[in-house]
Amino acid sequence: MTKAGTRSRWRTPPLGSTSVTGGFWARRQAVNRQVSIPAGFRQLEASGSFNNIRLAAGDGEGEFRTTGADTFVYKWLEAIAYDSANEPNPETLAMADEVIRLIEAAQMDDGYVHSYFKVVKPGERWTDLAHNHELYAAGHLIEAAIAMRRATGDDRLLKVARRFADHIAEVFGPGRRAGAPGHPEIESALVELYRETGERRYLDLVSFFVDQRGSGEMSGYGRWGPVYHQDHVPVREADAVAGHAVRQLYLTAGVTDLFLETGDATLLTAMERLWRDMTAHRMHLTAGFGARESGEAFAGAYELPSDSCYCETCAAIAALMWNWRMLLVDGKTCYADLLERSLYNGFLSGVSVDGQTYFYVNPLQSRGGIERPEWYGCACCPPNVMRTIALAGHYAATVSDGGVQVHQYMTSRVDAAGEAGPQVVLSVETDYPWSGDVVITVDKTDGSAWELALRVPGWCPGATVAVSGEPVGEYRGGVYATVERAWRPGDTVVLRLSMAPRFMAPNPRIDAIRGSVAVMRGPLVYCLESVDQPDVDLLDVTVDPGSAMATTWEPDLLDGVMTVKIPGNVMAQADWEGELYLPEGSAQTEGRLVTLTAVPYYAWANRGPGEMRVWIPKG
Amino acid sequence: MTKAGTRSRWRTPPLGSTSVTGGFWARRQAVNRQVSIPAGFRQLEASGSFNNIRLAAGDGEGEFRTTGADTFVYKWLEAIAYDSANEPNPETLAMADEVIRLIEAAQMDDGYVHSYFKVVKPGERWTDLAHNHELYAAGHLIEAAIAMRRATGDDRLLKVARRFADHIAEVFGPGRRAGAPGHPEIESALVELYRETGERRYLDLVSFFVDQRGSGEMSGYGRWGPVYHQDHVPVREADAVAGHAVRQLYLTAGVTDLFLETGDATLLTAMERLWRDMTAHRMHLTAGFGARESGEAFAGAYELPSDSCYCETCAAIAALMWNWRMLLVDGKTCYADLLERSLYNGFLSGVSVDGQTYFYVNPLQSRGGIERPEWYGCACCPPNVMRTIALAGHYAATVSDGGVQVHQYMTSRVDAAGEAGPQVVLSVETDYPWSGDVVITVDKTDGSAWELALRVPGWCPGATVAVSGEPVGEYRGGVYATVERAWRPGDTVVLRLSMAPRFMAPNPRIDAIRGSVAVMRGPLVYCLESVDQPDVDLLDVTVDPGSAMATTWEPDLLDGVMTVKIPGNVMAQADWEGELYLPEGSAQTEGRLVTLTAVPYYAWANRGPGEMRVWIPKG
Repeated sequence: MTKAGTRSRWRTPPLGSTSVTGGFWARRQAVNRQVSIPAGFRQLEASGSFNNIRLAAGDGEGEFRTTGADTFVYKWLEAIAYDSANEPNPETLAMADEVIRLIEAAQMDDGYVHSYFKVVKPGERWTDLAHNHELYAAGHLIEAAIAMRRATGDDRLLKVARRFADHIAEVFGPGRRAGAPGHPEIESALVELYRETGERRYLDLVSFFVDQRGSGEMSGYGRWGPVYHQDHVPVREADAVAGHAVRQLYLTAGVTDLFLETGDATLLTAMERLWRDMTAHRMHLTAGFGARESGEAFAGAYELPSDSCYCETCAAIAALMWNWRMLLVDGKTCYADLLERSLYNGFLSGVSVDGQTYFYVNPLQSRGGIERPEWYGCACCPPNVMRTIALAGHYAATVSDGGVQVHQYMTSRVDAAGEAGPQVVLSVETDYPWSGDVVITVDKTDGSAWELALRVPGWCPGATVAVSGEPVGEYRGGVYATVERAWRPGDTVVLRLSMAPRFMAPNPRIDAIRGSVAVMRGPLVYCLESVDQPDVDLLDVTVDPGSAMATTWEPDLLDGVMTVKIPGNVMAQADWEGELYLPEGSAQTEGRLVTLTAVPYYAWANRGPGEMRVWIPKG
Repeated sequence: MTKAGTRSRWRTPPLGSTSVTGGFWARRQAVNRQVSIPAGFRQLEASGSFNNIRLAAGDGEGEFRTTGADTFVYKWLEAIAYDSANEPNPETLAMADEVIRLIEAAQMDDGYVHSYFKVVKPGERWTDLAHNHELYAAGHLIEAAIAMRRATGDDRLLKVARRFADHIAEVFGPGRRAGAPGHPEIESALVELYRETGERRYLDLVSFFVDQRGSGEMSGYGRWGPVYHQDHVPVREADAVAGHAVRQLYLTAGVTDLFLETGDATLLTAMERLWRDMTAHRMHLTAGFGARESGEAFAGAYELPSDSCYCETCAAIAALMWNWRMLLVDGKTCYADLLERSLYNGFLSGVSVDGQTYFYVNPLQSRGGIERPEWYGCACCPPNVMRTIALAGHYAATVSDGGVQVHQYMTSRVDAAGEAGPQVVLSVETDYPWSGDVVITVDKTDGSAWELALRVPGWCPGATVAVSGEPVGEYRGGVYATVERAWRPGDTVVLRLSMAPRFMAPNPRIDAIRGSVAVMRGPLVYCLESVDQPDVDLLDVTVDPGSAMATTWEPDLLDGVMTVKIPGNVMAQADWEGELYLPEGSAQTEGRLVTLTAVPYYAWANRGPGEMRVWIPKG
């Protein structure tokens, strides 16, 4: 999570002060708490991740397993912390306690923490910053430690993390060891550690790491060069997102954190440039990132295949982190819009509805055969999903001296009392994303005049705001609707967002989805799954984007979803049978009318390994 | 090359009896002889491939290099043999002589030949058939040896190859060692060795290797399972081409060779099924094969991206080999058509027009930045190109007891005298593929009545045949036009193929190129390169497939090509600027008229690393 930066326009309330109390995200958080986090405990044991740390603590048995597995443990601990901030859970806190003791015991005398380089390769510490994940792991340790302290007051892990951070600050820096982390992550973590402790040297170390980039010395795996690690160009000179998508987006999140504290405008200019490049050239409709499996990387401009794309769950999480920080800088809706798009699509597709299985890769089309596993050998995504779901409420709202800003619509409680600015407690009630109606009640206020700002999402063609039954404004998407007054307890504000399903068209420069449309409703991207279309091969489906679509609430489907019914055609292969290419105009295709059922993309692959597609040919 | 199989409908004349004498392929063969083969000598030296064999011969210095490099040497020797059959070349034969001496010296006492397992891992011979390339290398050694003997009478290499084949037959077989080659190739080679020597055990060994497949025991690299090596299913039960494309197609070529000698109909049935699957589901317009970089593999049905496809040059060569064998079986035009499509497109794009640089991967779209290197670390393709170009004349014609069949139109001499069947010598003159006019003169004949069969390619909408000035028939593509009579020396047959450029449409199930058309003329696929379209971004080009196209012969462009001029539009990004996705209908695009210049696909990337595209959006 992010504390307010000194340069941020808006501030984040303390952990737990913006919390989900019902609705869509409460359900996801309950599954996360009851199913995913306990299953994570079992998987981390079964896969040897805990045992690695036990070995480092001098207490394990058997073989050391996956090299970078410490980070899976840290992210899982961070998830427990956030989850406990929502609702204390003695069961998972007891699991965490056991693991924290191990990590304490595994720390070396000089502060260094990394089970692989303690147990297996003790002489090779810091020998390959590009490919070993020591600084990356340090970052996740620091983040888990801060989360645990903020959530529960338990600062045992924070003591470990600070000793490690102090050790890193002794090793790296001007006049000491040079180099940058091959996998960014420690940047945001050290900025947050600076926020938590006030120790300036942690912030200086981030500046150092950021300035080291562009040496061209880090070379990627296989045929990848320095671009894989974003080491091909200095951070301030980059003009396009490039290389390994997760690394790129953890880096931009960290650099934005650095700007939030230092105000170095050259960094912000670069981040804004990269954001424009990414959204104009290298983003899937689902806000998935990384179009190429090879290098798990950003691809060329407009190279956005639906089938062979990577769109790693961790990349969507990283994008969410980055957009949150950009939003804090200057409060533009575009950042909250993109955060929302990742949250409900490219991110949420990374976990099954029952919280038991995951996706690492999130394509927008499957020709069948893709199934979710319970865990991965490289299990970076599952615990990253857990911590992000547990933290969902964090993204709901911010505060400023002049008021409260609501960004993500969740049934939630926003407690800004005790912070600088108006002393306010709000409750938000909504069936979002199924309904566009949001009711905000002022539960407490201090009598002063303050401004309530409500995001009208960029996707929304029309919205209205009413205060205690009185209309106060109409809006088109892409603004914050603001109402300033001396509020009284019990005042209600009703935001109504138009939620008609809409056909989306791709920029004609995108080759992979030419001649196709996708369906969105509210923030949700929809998809067709073969399980919902009996006797239809998804290869042969077309739709007329002039058609009227209908929605149906289906409480028993996929834990409750709004489906979209779309009039469509199923084209016969007819003259094409057995031919891939024919002279233009020589093959006729005729169709039969059908009604297609679309479900939210995030919920795909929960009912077997059938076909799926987001983009549907026009016909 | 392939000798007649006992089950073949048509027979191949001996090496050198169907030879290119002018025109398109004479030019390619001259470049191959004068530039590519001598450059190959230098590259094989510089890359250490010769030195590996020198080390195995006890005469090298320095380090062993690339593991599988022996095969690059064998294919290069095979190219020299075929080239010498066309026109003896003392210079390259001297190079070959030096290398043959090395290989003789490198052979082990028991007949084993493989420099890596002699020099580096002497104890690990035959320990990993899936991933080591020992049997694959043996196959290429055998093929080179047969070629050298047939071309020059020099049988030194054949003696080496037979001793090795005998050793392999002692190691593998029923009651001896089990297993199949991870990379097929030895199958066709051993069948040819059987044809050359009459030794039945070589043929039996092929049956053994083919029958070993389907064990599921060979596992691919990384996440690939047995499908990578075509070990997931017995050969007779396979219903789709799958896995590594080059391996799959060398296997099908070898199995077809086996059928040609054994007549085992269950093999042919499987091969026909795989051929239909491949051409109906998994083939690029260029007759490139292997749609996925990951695993260099065949992908799902209709998964045929233009940009991220693999389409390895060696896969096109393997397809050419397979189609030639299928054609020999039953003489269907479809096989000669596909051979032609690979030859002029997916294969020929693998080498630059000047014969100095190569492509391993042959995409149908480049967003820029792709350049041809002079050699590859894994240099399987360059010498494979050399041997294929040198052998081009082999594919021109076949003979049977009843006549002569002309399949590929090249200015050439077809000498069927001295073979069974009519004693005939033909000369063929043509500017094909630029012109569709082919003149065939009967130079010698024995006075008997025999049938001349001329392929009317499947792509051809109309063709006429005249004998000594008299029209004798009109045809649509996809048949052999036949004329039977008692020919006299001096008789001429003129075939005229309609060569109007045509727009090709993709099967609507192919997502990657929906809404686009491609231009073909004769057997050639055309493409747009940015170098030919000043002030036009290929991302923004559209064409109207109702437009009339014009052709221009450009003698100074790309060693002489026919260009195609296409009326087109350049669409403005206008409302799209900076957006990847917008509600359908909300963005307008207007175009300006331009004339686009298309060049043959095989000649792309000879003028710098600009953009290229085969499939052009309709607009």
